[in-house]
Amino acid sequence: MRAAVFQGPGEITVEDVPKPEIEAPTDAIVRVTHTAVCGSDLWFYRGESDRDSGTRVGHEPMGIVEEVGDDVRSVEPGDRVFAPFVVSCGHCEFCRKGLHTSCVDGDGWGGDNGGGQGEYVRSPHADGTLVRVPDRHADDEETLEAILPLTDVMGTGHHAALSAGVEEGSTCIVIGDGAVGLCGVLAARRLGAERIVAMGHHEDRLDIAEEFGATETVSARGEEAVERATELTYGGANHVVECVGAASSMDTAIGVCRPGGTVGYVGVPHGVNEDGLDLLSMFRDNIALRGGVAPVRAYAEELLADVLQGTLDPSPIFTKTVDVEGVPEGYRAMDEREAIKVLVKPEH
Amino acid sequence: MRAAVFQGPGEITVEDVPKPEIEAPTDAIVRVTHTAVCGSDLWFYRGESDRDSGTRVGHEPMGIVEEVGDDVRSVEPGDRVFAPFVVSCGHCEFCRKGLHTSCVDGDGWGGDNGGGQGEYVRSPHADGTLVRVPDRHADDEETLEAILPLTDVMGTGHHAALSAGVEEGSTCIVIGDGAVGLCGVLAARRLGAERIVAMGHHEDRLDIAEEFGATETVSARGEEAVERATELTYGGANHVVECVGAASSMDTAIGVCRPGGTVGYVGVPHGVNEDGLDLLSMFRDNIALRGGVAPVRAYAEELLADVLQGTLDPSPIFTKTVDVEGVPEGYRAMDEREAIKVLVKPEH
Repeated sequence: MRAAVFQGPGEITVEDVPKPEIEAPTDAIVRVTHTAVCGSDLWFYRGESDRDSGTRVGHEPMGIVEEVGDDVRSVEPGDRVFAPFVVSCGHCEFCRKGLHTSCVDGDGWGGDNGGGQGEYVRSPHADGTLVRVPDRHADDEETLEAILPLTDVMGTGHHAALSAGVEEGSTCIVIGDGAVGLCGVLAARRLGAERIVAMGHHEDRLDIAEEFGATETVSARGEEAVERATELTYGGANHVVECVGAASSMDTAIGVCRPGGTVGYVGVPHGVNEDGLDLLSMFRDNIALRGGVAPVRAYAEELLADVLQGTLDPSPIFTKTVDVEGVPEGYRAMDEREAIKVLVKPEH
Repeated sequence: MRAAVFQGPGEITVEDVPKPEIEAPTDAIVRVTHTAVCGSDLWFYRGESDRDSGTRVGHEPMGIVEEVGDDVRSVEPGDRVFAPFVVSCGHCEFCRKGLHTSCVDGDGWGGDNGGGQGEYVRSPHADGTLVRVPDRHADDEETLEAILPLTDVMGTGHHAALSAGVEEGSTCIVIGDGAVGLCGVLAARRLGAERIVAMGHHEDRLDIAEEFGATETVSARGEEAVERATELTYGGANHVVECVGAASSMDTAIGVCRPGGTVGYVGVPHGVNEDGLDLLSMFRDNIALRGGVAPVRAYAEELLADVLQGTLDPSPIFTKTVDVEGVPEGYRAMDEREAIKVLVKPEH
């Protein structure tokens, strides 16, 4: 089968690799029909985080179950399924409390199970990991493209908004106009926020933020951006949804948070320790920091129900589509910010 | 009047200074009968934080109202009162929501209002700041010594426990065996915690922690301490009450927190930015950080009611008593860890 492989910074190739096989009775083999390139893939692509050369990449698979192990109960061959970016058993303490990312038997994609950006994956813990799309929606292309972000960015934006304590009537500020930030806006609207100030640097993306429910946008940078957002919210928002993870955006988040408020964060922290989180401001103003790697499996059923009933559609974040041979081009387009998020459709 | 003055690291003197006078109609003049030396005073005493030479010190005053401005409604001359370590107006947005430390018109002690470690203070915003002790308890020395910690350390320990989400049935870990840590134990017990693991380095203080309600204590250091507390809680506590503020204790707090748990912190952060908060662990495990400078005014009535009914008594933290001339000796004793907390009784 064909699959994308990381060769080194700036270099993704598509190779012939062995098709995965059932290894444990709880495994399922999924023929990938839809997957994506993630903003977090750009960290290793840009050489800003370490990754071994020769490893398979991708972690947002959706497809058709081809084969299941003897112990798999919740899916069967022919089912349309998707999988979150983390494998989880579904029944340990942490899975039961909705923190699937801390599953005691969890794993990522990209090891011997196959990365998500390829023709097939092996899903360990299929009952805990895979989410089944009801048959009546299983072949509707538009619906599938709206579901695909539930593998990662939509669940991540939702986790950020929940972590920030967004609820009915909230005023919130969403930082970042990448796919997660845009999904954070959608999530905040879905949770009932009354005012959503979206902060970012790209007018075309902020236009999507407005489509998604942002009531105001701020495109300034640095101190000016903090001042503008603080002014718009009469002294800062109680709920700040941080969707970038860079040191500068964490500073912005703390800067626009109202005393006693909460910053919900989901961007993998980058460079924050070097420059130091502004803990003294947080301390002085009793600003809480909640969040982390998003347990998107916990939110899958709830968000899927909304997509299926037509009240949630994050698919406008996909601004470019490639086949499996086009994955390297997908990385390039995202790296150069030509595309917000790239949809990958391996053709079999 | 006599009052303690900071001269430079390691040097506190007691000087003749002008007695404060009413300056605004919302002021009150309080003759200080009880006050204290705070662990946070040691930061400037040790030269670890900046403070101008010649400034008055102390911020935990209790005493008798001597004179009030024309607009003061809640106290009158002769009343026994105490004041939190921060002055607050009592009616702005933040005071109304219980975040008095973010009062829009707030202030600290030690400027022209007089530091707390002297014979008199001027309380700005007397209605918002001062808490009246009911007459029937106003002259009972034992009760007064149990009330005095409500000016700072008891309210601070309570804020840490609340911020960590401690509630009925919780298992929690309290880090620090100073006055705030010990009050954190008391607060956790009061909030209904079932298991309280106290971590510190001094056997005599951990004995008090046990009197205060700790069910287990850990006196090891570094990695060994983290392992021991993690083992005792079968994988870490969901509620970690951090009462020190040093980089090493923040690391310990994150290390002993269960995935999905919360670290409540109230110690002024020291050295954390230099060494970097372990944000990557927090991110991976979805550990939240809540807290900050404690709005002890918000908790005063509630904690006072418990002291008056005899169910709360933090006074064992006072292990040494001095008069106003003995304040320098009080700093020395706390600096050298001879005393947990020093009670100061200016005699008039």
